[in-house]
Amino acid sequence: MERDAILLTPGPLTTTERTKRAMLRDWGSWDSSFIAVTTGLRRQLLKIVHGEGSHVVVPLQGSGTFAVEAAVATIVPKTGHVLVLDNGAYCKRMGRLSTLMGRKTTILGHAEDQPVSPTELESALRGDASISHVGLIHCETGTGVLNPLQAIADVCARHGKGLIVDAMSSFAALPIDAREVRFDALVAASGKCLEGVPGMGFVFIRKDVIDGAAGNSHSLAMDLHDQHVYMEKTGQWRFTPPTHVVAALAEAMRQFEEEGGQSARGARYAANCAALVAGMKALGFVPFLKAEIQAPIILTFHAPADPAYDFKRFYDAVKARGFILYPGKLTQVETFRVGCIGAIGPAEMTEAVAAVAGAMKELGIRTGTPAVPA
Amino acid sequence: MERDAILLTPGPLTTTERTKRAMLRDWGSWDSSFIAVTTGLRRQLLKIVHGEGSHVVVPLQGSGTFAVEAAVATIVPKTGHVLVLDNGAYCKRMGRLSTLMGRKTTILGHAEDQPVSPTELESALRGDASISHVGLIHCETGTGVLNPLQAIADVCARHGKGLIVDAMSSFAALPIDAREVRFDALVAASGKCLEGVPGMGFVFIRKDVIDGAAGNSHSLAMDLHDQHVYMEKTGQWRFTPPTHVVAALAEAMRQFEEEGGQSARGARYAANCAALVAGMKALGFVPFLKAEIQAPIILTFHAPADPAYDFKRFYDAVKARGFILYPGKLTQVETFRVGCIGAIGPAEMTEAVAAVAGAMKELGIRTGTPAVPA
Repeated sequence: MERDAILLTPGPLTTTERTKRAMLRDWGSWDSSFIAVTTGLRRQLLKIVHGEGSHVVVPLQGSGTFAVEAAVATIVPKTGHVLVLDNGAYCKRMGRLSTLMGRKTTILGHAEDQPVSPTELESALRGDASISHVGLIHCETGTGVLNPLQAIADVCARHGKGLIVDAMSSFAALPIDAREVRFDALVAASGKCLEGVPGMGFVFIRKDVIDGAAGNSHSLAMDLHDQHVYMEKTGQWRFTPPTHVVAALAEAMRQFEEEGGQSARGARYAANCAALVAGMKALGFVPFLKAEIQAPIILTFHAPADPAYDFKRFYDAVKARGFILYPGKLTQVETFRVGCIGAIGPAEMTEAVAAVAGAMKELGIRTGTPAVPA
Repeated sequence: MERDAILLTPGPLTTTERTKRAMLRDWGSWDSSFIAVTTGLRRQLLKIVHGEGSHVVVPLQGSGTFAVEAAVATIVPKTGHVLVLDNGAYCKRMGRLSTLMGRKTTILGHAEDQPVSPTELESALRGDASISHVGLIHCETGTGVLNPLQAIADVCARHGKGLIVDAMSSFAALPIDAREVRFDALVAASGKCLEGVPGMGFVFIRKDVIDGAAGNSHSLAMDLHDQHVYMEKTGQWRFTPPTHVVAALAEAMRQFEEEGGQSARGARYAANCAALVAGMKALGFVPFLKAEIQAPIILTFHAPADPAYDFKRFYDAVKARGFILYPGKLTQVETFRVGCIGAIGPAEMTEAVAAVAGAMKELGIRTGTPAVPA
């Protein structure tokens, strides 16, 4: 019964043995066999968003944040003005990287337990004609809140503004159809809902947008236009690709197709989420978000009020039972997070709840009920 | 006898089965077990350059070029002036990324078949007092030429200039002792002579230099000061690390120690290089560089004059025999390259030469002798 700990974290996450075994081969980055892997990957990724005719997808070495920074650097001209819709930690990160690279950046703040507001966006755009681009996090992983992508995209389209979407933890699990949602760039990564290993991101970009993006980037490494042009010409990555990570993602995507694509994956995660919430509620825990704005990706729970609770000890006791939790990312309220994504199903979520119950017993935490009113 | 093709490429390269099998586990990036892997890795890396007391090492997600860009962005103030010593493709890349990010950049050109010159550097520094930093590629992978690191570092030290060294393909194979070679930053990557898989770089930085580097970077992703401060505080990477790549590098470094460290690895690569050169010369091939300036990392050979030679067909015929060559990177002369690095020894190099001989016979290439005078 010995097995590796299951990661209830929003990426890196638990991958299948088959995905990991795809890394047991070395690839020449210039070789035609590897070029074929990259080409196949790009084709399949475009299919997931139905962007075959209208968009390109540009892979990039590094973490998801690298790809978000690259999207902003490549899409927003140096004279542009980015409005970031902020309801959490990853929104703030987008604002920070945009500011650092010298793009004019405005933050439109929201409460962390609420989705961002299309109405407030509408007013902001009316109030400042210099805004050229809007930045949105689809599922804000800091809390797990689902932001209204379609409504935000519609407002941007109506005002003729560019839209950059960080869809890191929603892509491949929640529906995103490029024929209906108008975006300039949409960013995701290998180690999230496609269930690959971490090490590369990728950015979907509308064709007319990428064609006009030459010379925007202040950075060679982050220049998606340059990466795209080179890849189109040679089939290769400009700089050494993380070959094993790419091969693992290709293998993970075969399993994604076999499972039934986005709708099947989304359904499994929704079942994971339901099993987790039901089990945790039975132990007295209270989710931070209202159910109707909760994405089935990662759950934030209030810390129990019981004085026997200490996150570090709780984490270790759950880990000893084979499950890795994730710390909270809120500054005002004490919380912890539990991911619903990865190569796991409702059975593992039920086991995870049992591990939490065992940890509570060990530590003498009588109930998960928090101090805050539920 | 079925085995994967051996990569005679300068990274990605052939890694051991043991290194690849280290990727068969998923790691939580926040978890103490993974923090211990990162911490151990950083400690061991510092030991290789004898920089334990004087330097820090900052790992970074992405390819080696990302780490070079990050070193320039972090170390060179926005008002700085970088002089790049240029004798090949990777020098030009450093010049390009420095220019793009808005640092004043001057290129000091050299012939591609010659090492860069400490004397010319001396004159350049005398001629322009505004130069604040010098950029050097230790082993220029475009040709394989070894540049005189110690002599260049001595000139920089005498003039009080910063030195940024791209030691991508020399680190861990050629001796670099931070107690003797004075550098501000020295950059290498996982998938080179440490024989890990590609996906992360790392930068050695002198302590007083990193301490003064806050706020230099135009980029969040590329900010090594920010990465360092966060890692020192938490043991974690700022953004999702390529966990499997990190685990593979840790395993590769255990084998590096077992082999006997840098001197043993350098000796094996030198033996690989000698076996390759002897075998190829016997077939009529002529190396592009003189032996005394050739690093035992990657060899550039002139293309044969025989009209039956065509690189693509030659490459495919050698590949069919189990070895992956590398294209040339020179614009004026037709060449191809053969790497000596990776988890291979002189026996594999001899087999590689036999594969080349077999390919020549198949294609009707009578001799490897080039058109140029040897």
